Amino acid sequence: MRMYDIIKKKRDGFSLTKEEIDFFVKGFNDGSIPDYQASALMMAIFFNKMNEEETLNLTLAMANSGEMLDLSGIDGVKVDKHSTGGVGDKTSLSLIPMVASCGVKVAKMSGRGLGHTGGTIDKLESFPGFSTDIPVDKFEKNVKEIGISIMGQTKELAPADKKLYALRDITATVDNMSLIASSIMSKKLAAGADAIVLDVKTGSGAFMKTMEDSLALANEMVKIGNNAGRKTIAVVSDMDEPLGFAVGNALEVKEAIATLKGEGPADFTRLCMVLGAKMLCAGGYAKSDEEAESKLSDAIKSGRALDKLAEFVKAQGGDPDYVYNPDKLCEASLKIPVKAPRDGYISGIICDEVGNCSVILGGGRETKESSIDLSVGIVLSKKVGDYVKAGDEIAVIHANSEKKAEECMNRLLKAYSFSNDPVKKGDIIKKVIGM
Amino acid sequence: MRMYDIIKKKRDGFSLTKEEIDFFVKGFNDGSIPDYQASALMMAIFFNKMNEEETLNLTLAMANSGEMLDLSGIDGVKVDKHSTGGVGDKTSLSLIPMVASCGVKVAKMSGRGLGHTGGTIDKLESFPGFSTDIPVDKFEKNVKEIGISIMGQTKELAPADKKLYALRDITATVDNMSLIASSIMSKKLAAGADAIVLDVKTGSGAFMKTMEDSLALANEMVKIGNNAGRKTIAVVSDMDEPLGFAVGNALEVKEAIATLKGEGPADFTRLCMVLGAKMLCAGGYAKSDEEAESKLSDAIKSGRALDKLAEFVKAQGGDPDYVYNPDKLCEASLKIPVKAPRDGYISGIICDEVGNCSVILGGGRETKESSIDLSVGIVLSKKVGDYVKAGDEIAVIHANSEKKAEECMNRLLKAYSFSNDPVKKGDIIKKVIGM
Repeated sequence: MRMYDIIKKKRDGFSLTKEEIDFFVKGFNDGSIPDYQASALMMAIFFNKMNEEETLNLTLAMANSGEMLDLSGIDGVKVDKHSTGGVGDKTSLSLIPMVASCGVKVAKMSGRGLGHTGGTIDKLESFPGFSTDIPVDKFEKNVKEIGISIMGQTKELAPADKKLYALRDITATVDNMSLIASSIMSKKLAAGADAIVLDVKTGSGAFMKTMEDSLALANEMVKIGNNAGRKTIAVVSDMDEPLGFAVGNALEVKEAIATLKGEGPADFTRLCMVLGAKMLCAGGYAKSDEEAESKLSDAIKSGRALDKLAEFVKAQGGDPDYVYNPDKLCEASLKIPVKAPRDGYISGIICDEVGNCSVILGGGRETKESSIDLSVGIVLSKKVGDYVKAGDEIAVIHANSEKKAEECMNRLLKAYSFSNDPVKKGDIIKKVIGM
Repeated sequence: MRMYDIIKKKRDGFSLTKEEIDFFVKGFNDGSIPDYQASALMMAIFFNKMNEEETLNLTLAMANSGEMLDLSGIDGVKVDKHSTGGVGDKTSLSLIPMVASCGVKVAKMSGRGLGHTGGTIDKLESFPGFSTDIPVDKFEKNVKEIGISIMGQTKELAPADKKLYALRDITATVDNMSLIASSIMSKKLAAGADAIVLDVKTGSGAFMKTMEDSLALANEMVKIGNNAGRKTIAVVSDMDEPLGFAVGNALEVKEAIATLKGEGPADFTRLCMVLGAKMLCAGGYAKSDEEAESKLSDAIKSGRALDKLAEFVKAQGGDPDYVYNPDKLCEASLKIPVKAPRDGYISGIICDEVGNCSVILGGGRETKESSIDLSVGIVLSKKVGDYVKAGDEIAVIHANSEKKAEECMNRLLKAYSFSNDPVKKGDIIKKVIGM
């Protein structure tokens, strides 16, 4: 088998066999197939696409390129959750304790934030002492004992995907649904869960800006997951404005805690309930969405969901007292209100620009090596559809530098748009795919 | 400017500017742009093509990536000739002395053979002592004094093309008309001639198998040449059966010498007359094809064309006596006739298979490092359209190994096809483009 023939075959519009895809992934991963042949193949795939079988085979080959976590030693159906990332996306922080307190076993690999989207690990590190840098046996022990464990993406998981993504990123070959889906799913498959619930974001703050692309990605991933024998569901959710009110690490943790007490923003609470219900159903912990949502509501009302977060934080070295006293979490020195420049209905908030503002304040990473300030960020006071009078507070900037706050203020004001007519706000849940 | 943006622009179907193409060629040539980005761009070009302006700019950038020969010190219009290569293609050996004896100045870079097509340099080395490894000043001196000089492709000429072609060759990105045309023309432009006559082969023994592709390539090259300010003409000629009768280095030299004496095969003689006329016209040495062909006929009849070959061989270190006594040229030990297996009209000779037979005998290179046997090859006795009876000699194998001769015999017999009905044979000249 020659890599040249594989490139030519895909270039000429034919489908690649499992053997050809395995040959490519293995050779690329071990370095025997050079980058310049891999990038030519990626560009040929960009143009000629891959069918369902090829996409599955690529995903499996990448999943199998490194360690495959074996969670079979843990009783029960293990359910993983993945978000394609967005602004103010603190979903895992509330959702995972919610479902775990209903019996779901969650064994999750998470990433750090990059660019305008935040990462779950960064947010969790707002709890002093908390660490995701734990060995695999501790990871498994925590899942068994308390039902939750989160660890950082290890180098050993799907290394071929990591290498291929880095190459695609610099050769303009990222934008292909099959390749995007297989990159995400290869890591999910390697992480070993039995069922996977995907939160595919759509809108200005998401990787996928249009509903069409988001649906396509969701469909691709659900097909891969189910074809690989994992029960997979995707929820397409709105990311055209930030999720909830808080954007910034510790600020989001506070909002997540409030949500676990039943005091969270409506949109964010609804998203957690829908994703949570899907996780319960996928794992066989509930027979219907209604039953699942009732269980999740009970977990919140009874305080079990909040207790589960405290248990989880403690198990990974953090101080659980912060869960019950979130005011102890780090706080920025400056809190500067942003005022509405005019009367009117808020018609739009450019979502990734709010994320960029948080990066400017020091709350996000510009490069992988950047260190971040966990205390800063933006808390929106008003969102799309709300009516404001000129001078009303529409957001509060939490900053540790006046200069940065000023830059943030200028950009944030430009991110808002207003209308004289009432603005209809859609449901945060756009579509559910699978099951 | 970033290479990433250039790849993405072409990927998305936009045209690249001169600045972007220059940036790519310069960076790729000096190594600052890595191979994996270059191959991704080549694949994007394969799919989205390049327009006339982009193709010209790529050609010019590659031509300018190394030394540009300056032939302005030589009086008169310098005319270059290039063939896309074929089986039995000894055209330069007869054509160049013919036109040079009519006053045309020919300063030519030639290559060695690879695969089933032979190279002019290999053939010329049949003259003991002959060398194309001459310094540039000697090259120019010979053109001035005798009107002909041929040197090997130097490393300094269009190095970006050499590097890019090597990359395309292993990433399945050769097959694009603009890229093929710009690769050929970048070397022609760098070689400094004022006018260029291209012999574009078409058929089973050519790089371009179909008339459609051959015309497309011819058009691309003529446009590039004329846009770059060089008078350029392309002749599309048949390569569906070998050119003339002889295939093999010394065998072809003998046929070329015969042709310079007016005793060559009809098809080959016609091709030389047409190409020669175009070279005379392009260089302003004749006003019409008729005038040019009359001059070329005179040159043959008077013996001036043959004398010019002797002069040229001598000027590059070869023994001119071999020109007048071609029987002195090296000869294979075995001459084995191939017999017609049946009565009938020869309806086809798979052309590249005859070239492959010559390679099997040792007359061609399988890799760039192979050494070759100049004496071996095949001399056809009958060609397409000829009627034969079973047992008639249709070819003679010239070999130095019985085993190789046997393999050659088996394959050669399969390359011939026969018909009961007369077979119409077309003109070797299919089309002339330009002027």
